[in-house]
Amino acid sequence: MKINDKCGIVGAYSKLEDVVSLIFYGLYTLQHRGQESCGIAVYNGEVNMSKGMGMVAEFFSRERLNSLHGRIGIGHVRYSTAGASRIENAQPFLITHSKVTLAIAHNGNIVNYLELRRELERVGQAFVSTTDSEVIAHMIVREYIRSGDIVSSIENVMNKLVGSYSLVLLVDDKLIAVRDPLGIRPLCMGRDENTVVFASESVVFDVLNIPFYGDVKPGEVVIVSDEGIERHRIKKSNRTAHCMFEYIYFARPDSILNGIPVYSVREKIGKIHGEKDDVDADFVTPVPDSAIPFALGYSRARGLPYRETLIRNRYVGRTFILPKQKQRELAVKLKLNPMILQVKGKSLVLFDDSIVRGTTSTRIIKILREAGAREIHMRVGCPPIKSLCKLGIDMPTDKELIASSRNIEEIRKTIGADTLKYLEIEELLEAIGLGEDRLCLGCLTGEYPVKIPKYEQLPLSVFLRNS
Amino acid sequence: MKINDKCGIVGAYSKLEDVVSLIFYGLYTLQHRGQESCGIAVYNGEVNMSKGMGMVAEFFSRERLNSLHGRIGIGHVRYSTAGASRIENAQPFLITHSKVTLAIAHNGNIVNYLELRRELERVGQAFVSTTDSEVIAHMIVREYIRSGDIVSSIENVMNKLVGSYSLVLLVDDKLIAVRDPLGIRPLCMGRDENTVVFASESVVFDVLNIPFYGDVKPGEVVIVSDEGIERHRIKKSNRTAHCMFEYIYFARPDSILNGIPVYSVREKIGKIHGEKDDVDADFVTPVPDSAIPFALGYSRARGLPYRETLIRNRYVGRTFILPKQKQRELAVKLKLNPMILQVKGKSLVLFDDSIVRGTTSTRIIKILREAGAREIHMRVGCPPIKSLCKLGIDMPTDKELIASSRNIEEIRKTIGADTLKYLEIEELLEAIGLGEDRLCLGCLTGEYPVKIPKYEQLPLSVFLRNS
Amino acid sequence: MKINDKCGIVGAYSKLEDVVSLIFYGLYTLQHRGQESCGIAVYNGEVNMSKGMGMVAEFFSRERLNSLHGRIGIGHVRYSTAGASRIENAQPFLITHSKVTLAIAHNGNIVNYLELRRELERVGQAFVSTTDSEVIAHMIVREYIRSGDIVSSIENVMNKLVGSYSLVLLVDDKLIAVRDPLGIRPLCMGRDENTVVFASESVVFDVLNIPFYGDVKPGEVVIVSDEGIERHRIKKSNRTAHCMFEYIYFARPDSILNGIPVYSVREKIGKIHGEKDDVDADFVTPVPDSAIPFALGYSRARGLPYRETLIRNRYVGRTFILPKQKQRELAVKLKLNPMILQVKGKSLVLFDDSIVRGTTSTRIIKILREAGAREIHMRVGCPPIKSLCKLGIDMPTDKELIASSRNIEEIRKTIGADTLKYLEIEELLEAIGLGEDRLCLGCLTGEYPVKIPKYEQLPLSVFLRNS
Amino acid sequence: MKINDKCGIVGAYSKLEDVVSLIFYGLYTLQHRGQESCGIAVYNGEVNMSKGMGMVAEFFSRERLNSLHGRIGIGHVRYSTAGASRIENAQPFLITHSKVTLAIAHNGNIVNYLELRRELERVGQAFVSTTDSEVIAHMIVREYIRSGDIVSSIENVMNKLVGSYSLVLLVDDKLIAVRDPLGIRPLCMGRDENTVVFASESVVFDVLNIPFYGDVKPGEVVIVSDEGIERHRIKKSNRTAHCMFEYIYFARPDSILNGIPVYSVREKIGKIHGEKDDVDADFVTPVPDSAIPFALGYSRARGLPYRETLIRNRYVGRTFILPKQKQRELAVKLKLNPMILQVKGKSLVLFDDSIVRGTTSTRIIKILREAGAREIHMRVGCPPIKSLCKLGIDMPTDKELIASSRNIEEIRKTIGADTLKYLEIEELLEAIGLGEDRLCLGCLTGEYPVKIPKYEQLPLSVFLRNS
Repeated sequence: MKINDKCGIVGAYSKLEDVVSLIFYGLYTLQHRGQESCGIAVYNGEVNMSKGMGMVAEFFSRERLNSLHGRIGIGHVRYSTAGASRIENAQPFLITHSKVTLAIAHNGNIVNYLELRRELERVGQAFVSTTDSEVIAHMIVREYIRSGDIVSSIENVMNKLVGSYSLVLLVDDKLIAVRDPLGIRPLCMGRDENTVVFASESVVFDVLNIPFYGDVKPGEVVIVSDEGIERHRIKKSNRTAHCMFEYIYFARPDSILNGIPVYSVREKIGKIHGEKDDVDADFVTPVPDSAIPFALGYSRARGLPYRETLIRNRYVGRTFILPKQKQRELAVKLKLNPMILQVKGKSLVLFDDSIVRGTTSTRIIKILREAGAREIHMRVGCPPIKSLCKLGIDMPTDKELIASSRNIEEIRKTIGADTLKYLEIEELLEAIGLGEDRLCLGCLTGEYPVKIPKYEQLPLSVFLRNS
Repeated sequence: MKINDKCGIVGAYSKLEDVVSLIFYGLYTLQHRGQESCGIAVYNGEVNMSKGMGMVAEFFSRERLNSLHGRIGIGHVRYSTAGASRIENAQPFLITHSKVTLAIAHNGNIVNYLELRRELERVGQAFVSTTDSEVIAHMIVREYIRSGDIVSSIENVMNKLVGSYSLVLLVDDKLIAVRDPLGIRPLCMGRDENTVVFASESVVFDVLNIPFYGDVKPGEVVIVSDEGIERHRIKKSNRTAHCMFEYIYFARPDSILNGIPVYSVREKIGKIHGEKDDVDADFVTPVPDSAIPFALGYSRARGLPYRETLIRNRYVGRTFILPKQKQRELAVKLKLNPMILQVKGKSLVLFDDSIVRGTTSTRIIKILREAGAREIHMRVGCPPIKSLCKLGIDMPTDKELIASSRNIEEIRKTIGADTLKYLEIEELLEAIGLGEDRLCLGCLTGEYPVKIPKYEQLPLSVFLRNS
Repeated sequence: MKINDKCGIVGAYSKLEDVVSLIFYGLYTLQHRGQESCGIAVYNGEVNMSKGMGMVAEFFSRERLNSLHGRIGIGHVRYSTAGASRIENAQPFLITHSKVTLAIAHNGNIVNYLELRRELERVGQAFVSTTDSEVIAHMIVREYIRSGDIVSSIENVMNKLVGSYSLVLLVDDKLIAVRDPLGIRPLCMGRDENTVVFASESVVFDVLNIPFYGDVKPGEVVIVSDEGIERHRIKKSNRTAHCMFEYIYFARPDSILNGIPVYSVREKIGKIHGEKDDVDADFVTPVPDSAIPFALGYSRARGLPYRETLIRNRYVGRTFILPKQKQRELAVKLKLNPMILQVKGKSLVLFDDSIVRGTTSTRIIKILREAGAREIHMRVGCPPIKSLCKLGIDMPTDKELIASSRNIEEIRKTIGADTLKYLEIEELLEAIGLGEDRLCLGCLTGEYPVKIPKYEQLPLSVFLRNS
Repeated sequence: MKINDKCGIVGAYSKLEDVVSLIFYGLYTLQHRGQESCGIAVYNGEVNMSKGMGMVAEFFSRERLNSLHGRIGIGHVRYSTAGASRIENAQPFLITHSKVTLAIAHNGNIVNYLELRRELERVGQAFVSTTDSEVIAHMIVREYIRSGDIVSSIENVMNKLVGSYSLVLLVDDKLIAVRDPLGIRPLCMGRDENTVVFASESVVFDVLNIPFYGDVKPGEVVIVSDEGIERHRIKKSNRTAHCMFEYIYFARPDSILNGIPVYSVREKIGKIHGEKDDVDADFVTPVPDSAIPFALGYSRARGLPYRETLIRNRYVGRTFILPKQKQRELAVKLKLNPMILQVKGKSLVLFDDSIVRGTTSTRIIKILREAGAREIHMRVGCPPIKSLCKLGIDMPTDKELIASSRNIEEIRKTIGADTLKYLEIEELLEAIGLGEDRLCLGCLTGEYPVKIPKYEQLPLSVFLRNS
């Protein structure tokens, strides 16, 4: 199976100091973008790398951190994708050639991966992983050893890549950031006098106390070294396609992506919902934590009270022992417990950021009803998700997406809500403040900003062996 | 050093089924009451016990859980107290005698511990730990082997114990719950046709889906076995002394303690603050997560908007690598990051549940100012904490308590707030809905519901060796 | 189940230096005496202790070692006894009383354990473990707090103890070594100008480079502190009862116990066998490693060549994954592989130190036959073991002992040897160089040097609850 | 730094059954050839692989073993080389291409590695590791996707490889064994009706209970699949160059390599030494365990008694905590303790298999002298090692080799022996029974059976970046 690169990336350069702790804290701040594996590569005459399974604070013991040194480096956290939990897929991915050493950390999904891999295979290249990153790494190295010019090499590769890619690279003693021409996945830049940092989200700069400088532009290549910073706007598209789901769910609320504060979008969505809604209810309540700003926006717009009803157990994490069949319901409440006194006899507007499979919504509505809720009016901060993301967000297959084959009334019945309202696509554009030609709405419309090959819908293993 | 038993306890009995998973999920639900160590003891003809360092989901591997069997058992999670992190202090504590086997899990603090220990020492008893629980266990066993009657044995011991104690015991094939006559620490009971569960907080019954039956009464002993349930109201005081800090901070918001919902108390405190406050501000904002209901109550009462400004990194936990000196500030924002766009130029009411040392408040106010807050009006959900708890809540020494030697204006200056208002004690009573003779306000007033020996203020090691 | 204390102990005192590393290396040297758990307790104003499951080099990380400090301390390694692998049974065992702190490490078995425990129970003592050591510790503390004199306290306890005991104690700031009046288990002493060390075996002094000073005498109590060394010969018996099995198998070959070098005993047994044997064979070969000196002695006495035939895999240790049923034979050869070229067509004398269950002998003979051995003449360095040790060596029950119910010819048939010769008891006495009144031969004769209560043959749990 | 592949390999095919446990036990048996990392790859429609740091029994938990399934597979254990202890270097090495999947496990050293790597780099290949195995894997895949014929592909690669290589490969559904034309490193084959196993040493077949079928011939390629076994003698050299050091030290004594039993060679070397020696001594004694057969052979030839003097602590392994400086000597005796009673006043012949740096010999002679040895006559089972192995045995640099710059008399003085005799090269040939044109004597003579490029003597990093 091909592995999509759904994750968080950091790159750092300092004129004066070791950047290992900057990268470490940067990855720690981006932990929500991936908990399966993590890694750091630093350049210090040669490249040293340490990567492994687990979360940043678990894997990077003091001993491991102390073994890494360099004024320039990159880091990566990877999302857990079922069945692909292998050390071979951890990043950064590092290759050496007598003319160049290249380490890469990638967030995104190359949709013509198979064609590109085949092209490399035709000249004899075999692969150690099934990641996009390995293909990109070999493409860049091959260009570079031919031309010796890194900018034109990356440009040539970008001309071939179809899909989403935010990259940080170590190319010998240079730190390079690359973003796809449509700007699908985010990539931000922070800098002060002595330091340059790239990160998937701007919150990293808040934490590192480094001024946020702006986005890496769509189609841009930024090269940082002791010689200074060069910015090359390699490819300019007449549109962009920023992922709308970063604003809805994936990014941290305190990040600013593409100039737009995530938190404000979420509040505004709540407001839009609230302004048009007239359902009779006692209050609005969020599914914590992600839906809180939505519900607050709704509350303010409608003048309906905002209340907490579901309490999250902060200690339920990854090391959860799966309960026996009859204890499944117990497990739900272990994570998220409804307060009967807040809920009993009440009519409530329940806000969630999105509905993917529908199973979580179904369970939450069930336990709220059991806690005595009289009416449950579900409001969703996102239009129906009908088509799995092909550009870098981990989603179940179309068949599992509750909205792929059901209309809203059918979904309402399935999840057990009294009423159900989704956000309209028009409203989403309004909330984000960008037009259709600025956003990727693929998972909502099935129309992607790049051409998606048929095989992207299928298990890749079928294709990898038979041309 | 003597070890106070600040923690969470669970006891379970079932007519039909193994109770190990009930205890496991119960402890998981009470994880906020203690993360240092955990343990489970079950009776199945003989007592089997497994206990160790770490959190419930870490220590109790499937293998360890599967090694335990029994229809009756008790469990314990222990709070981390600096310097006392030893396996010898983990609970339950189990002792055997040819006439009886007794396992104990204790939440509370016996203030005449030293006298009681000395009394046992006079008849030759030496000790393997410095916990209250060991002293109580030996006292009960000694009474029991003399009289053979468990109720009168526990009564005799209760007549000697001064302090707070909620206990669950396994005495041979009986599950016994005991609560001190003042009801200082909470202890709740849930039951259905076939099952009886005791737990520090009622939220356990929500999660286990067992009807909440009410509190174990102050001074009550409840005995559960295949013969049924016996309730003995051993000691009746003309007052109670429920810990007010459970309502403010320690208990989960979704628990109901002594018939009073924790969440409602927190909301009401916010309301009281709001009703009397007239500070000019743009909005009220909580220190997440504990201060949220306070801030919501305040917001509603004053009609002032409620806003989130601080985003918590959910992945910052116990395995945190301490940063180098110069990265201390970075660590604060790694945990709690202010959203500049919400804060810049704003005058805000910042709500926290309580101020203990004042260091956290100082840091939070600092980062909010750096994020551009114009005015910060601190509101506190609790009166000033002036005297460390001697009855079972882990607190720093009096000297470290910011309010022990400073008036409110001095505290305001120290933490850097523009204005600072605490809750009044009268208001606290109103919010909880109980009179002074129903609550323990020791940490606020220095007057405790039981006589506190002088040594409780000192390191116990001094006393343990020299009478 | 009662836990016998089959293990190794170390005690150390230094005028000048921390003794933690002496104890650590001492325990490491005695690792063959116990691999289940280990622990160290040191006195430094107060007692600090660290103990846990696993081998010395695994459990004692640098961090754990560095947390311990003191010029006086004791240590313990415990043998793995099936079913009793619990942290509660790890030693040293430490108890505190306002008048005294006592830590104990014990090697031996108290046969009147139950009577002594009952006696303590009659005055109200309950227990946290089922070890002898806890009973001894409480007995000494009770005497001491009554009399204040440690020597007479230990004397009074020794007057009551029946069985084997080599003890090292920390009693406040004193290091004390105690050995039972019959000297059943070994206990040695080493010293130089500034240091005193006690250890189960003299090899510890070789490794620590401290002169070996001699045995702690049977019935002796040695007290070491900054005041100097006091030796008290408390009890003098007209006989001793040194365990013969230490010489045969349990002790390291490079130890000297009771003035007698273990290696020489093993060689001499081989010699005695060789001198009287006339079996026709090509060579003599040992079961490695323990039987090597026996086989060498035999070879020299008979003038028969000594050859290796079985090669041991040094990497097969405790973490062995049990193979599926059909791979059982594979597992034997994984540990011990016969060299066909040395064996094929040969008649060989196979020497083993002892036969306990007979299963190992059976398997070894089987794989040697499959490797082509023509004749296998088994010679055993020990008389038939007919009765399980009640004084401190871990053995299976009598029923499992192959010699408890079979004569030599029956054993020969069972294990599949062509001929089988055991050592005679007379020859054993000759090889060790001590008379019957100097040795414990209980496992050979069923006659023990102390009176064994009936219950020592039964699972103790039966007795612990019902008098 | 380039990583040499000093290690053990196993390949297995079964008509009927899963081979994972065969490979696991095979690697366990070869653990002495490498303890740093281990791995298993199996084919079952696709290739599954699990590899990691640590020993076989540690890394391969039951869970990891159970996750692997296949009737065909390969495995690898890697030697610990200082500084290169990285997961990236663990084997097997697996690459996929749409036309072929190839996994490789390699024992040996390709001396023209750099030229071959450069050749691949010229067509654009970059590398993830610095192992030989990766270069070989890509060479084979490139040939194969061109020709589609595996035999000619391997032949073409063999035509280019200079150095030592014993390989097991998984090429899609085929198991392939390859051995270099000079047969430098060993590779053996075992088979029964349904099973074919390849392994570095024949002892694997003893343990697995599979008949030993003989060596893979120098220059041979053996292909095993459901279609049967094909043997191709691809390259025939008029000489062989079997590594003599396998017989002296590296291989297990119970293996038969190139038709010659290792144990017999070691005995015969002792015999040759003994026959010509006339030093006056009380006995001969080995450095255990490796020198035992040498010393036995010597003893028999001279009629001089064989005695043990040094006892090895079987529990001193890899997890050894390095002692503080002043405890260095302690550490030596912790591992190897001399028995004073065997040594005191004695003149002894001390046999060791070889002398590499000389530091171990120096220390052992020192502790034997301290134990009272009167005279120590060192005998060495191998001629002086003057030149580090370039063909697959881990050795220190020439400068560290004691014999590279000293004559025998100087070595004798350095190590502190009374007399010192090495084996002559002629005698080595006699003991092994092969002529100079059958063996690799490179480390003894500095003349290697293949041309060694200059860079093999230098840190490779210098070359990897600058042509």
